[in-house]
Amino acid sequence: MIAAMELGGTKTVVAIGESDGTLIEEYRFPTTKPEETFQTAIEWFAKRGVPTKIGIAAFGPVQINPKAANWGDILPTPKPHWSGFSITKSLLEAFPGVEITLETDVNAACLAEARIGAAAGLDNVVYITIGTGIGAGVLCDGRLLHGALHPEFGHLITPRKDGDDFAGACSFHGICLEGMASGPAIEQRWGIPGGQLPPEHAAWDTEAWYLAHGILSLLAIAPPERVVIGGGVSQAEGLHEKTEALVRKLAAGYFPAVENSPYVVPPKFEQEAGIRGALMLTGM
Amino acid sequence: MIAAMELGGTKTVVAIGESDGTLIEEYRFPTTKPEETFQTAIEWFAKRGVPTKIGIAAFGPVQINPKAANWGDILPTPKPHWSGFSITKSLLEAFPGVEITLETDVNAACLAEARIGAAAGLDNVVYITIGTGIGAGVLCDGRLLHGALHPEFGHLITPRKDGDDFAGACSFHGICLEGMASGPAIEQRWGIPGGQLPPEHAAWDTEAWYLAHGILSLLAIAPPERVVIGGGVSQAEGLHEKTEALVRKLAAGYFPAVENSPYVVPPKFEQEAGIRGALMLTGM
Repeated sequence: MIAAMELGGTKTVVAIGESDGTLIEEYRFPTTKPEETFQTAIEWFAKRGVPTKIGIAAFGPVQINPKAANWGDILPTPKPHWSGFSITKSLLEAFPGVEITLETDVNAACLAEARIGAAAGLDNVVYITIGTGIGAGVLCDGRLLHGALHPEFGHLITPRKDGDDFAGACSFHGICLEGMASGPAIEQRWGIPGGQLPPEHAAWDTEAWYLAHGILSLLAIAPPERVVIGGGVSQAEGLHEKTEALVRKLAAGYFPAVENSPYVVPPKFEQEAGIRGALMLTGM
Repeated sequence: MIAAMELGGTKTVVAIGESDGTLIEEYRFPTTKPEETFQTAIEWFAKRGVPTKIGIAAFGPVQINPKAANWGDILPTPKPHWSGFSITKSLLEAFPGVEITLETDVNAACLAEARIGAAAGLDNVVYITIGTGIGAGVLCDGRLLHGALHPEFGHLITPRKDGDDFAGACSFHGICLEGMASGPAIEQRWGIPGGQLPPEHAAWDTEAWYLAHGILSLLAIAPPERVVIGGGVSQAEGLHEKTEALVRKLAAGYFPAVENSPYVVPPKFEQEAGIRGALMLTGM
């Protein structure tokens, strides 16, 4: 039995399926305290059989380096109860010998979109999600990037848009992508949640500005052939097109990849990208 | 015989040596027109034997994807005579059956510094060079990054430093790293070449600002464990320390990798990193 788990900040998804990303059955429930969350997951799996492989897509910061002594641990995080919790230990105890593959939630989603989703067949793909926070999974040369820890794309520091005097919602950096373009940033800047702002509102030009600068940084470092943007905020009408047009304008003809259209696209799987990617991790 | 070639914008280096980066003999000469440059290289190699492998570290933009039909071609460049020239063809004609490995000059230098140089033993290393232009080679998870083409780190767009009203020296983007922090940018901004500006000059705070923002972007996308900065401009006294301190300050505790010291270092090989890396390409 091939199983998968997407551990998100507010919801958790467990599933059984195939390593090609096929979902057979899934179950979604709120992420609560760590022990409770994992007990629910383990009971759900156990009722369906004994998994031989589990792919996990986890929120971060998380130690995903299999060579590290603290592999599988949630690193210091403001999220109560989770700092230092091992997300692999209880699964290994419940299912001795199970093979666990662990990735960040955004890397798993990136994998699904790059192999069977909105960027199928491409080896250089970035998946960005914009909601309460901003994160990105980066596939470069057909491999998911980790580096010294894992990409923390939400904390990319960007130039300020002319006329935008918002102080920024990130407690670390003020003006970083998450500070300027996350859901809370939009609501704090305009006094209205993004979901209630009409497509013609200036908020979306501002949003596209920060996203475009994030993509320009990607082009300079790990150039993607296509960028998939998902998450609640991304559902604003026309945001992908607006961002793509601005990236192309600011790139000023320098980055050939950007001339391909569509370049900035919505995800194919949206809510299911993470759990499908987690299933696919078992085949890597 | 293992051979290597570093094709630079102004100088070319040819060498014979070992795939561990050991240099046996090298020869440096000015890069002139393409045919002439390669004739000189081929004659130098031929006098020493018939190479079985050649590692090439080339200036860009260059097509380094071995799957591409135009593999080995210099892509459109303002450098006269070089656009469209194949840097592999004449070598393959001169030495039939020779195995050629082609990389960007900065990726090759990064490889040498990461394996036997200033970042020896680390798997996540960035090598930045600052001279007439700015470029970077990125080793992430032990692999050199390419992506849709190859990193064009010099064209990373950064926030403007408060009080810096320089328009930028890059004809594409104005304010990008190369536009704000390359040798020509320094000379245009201050009216004095970098080499003549004393260490206490404000120019170096400005320089460190732009470099630090480049490194912060790397931390968000392909986080390095150490950053090696070389090239003529980097030889200013104290620039590495100043840049490291500013990166750490601006990171605001968010990126664990930055807390390691030294984090921003000069290269071990400086002039020889590229050609040593080119030799090492033959062993990959």
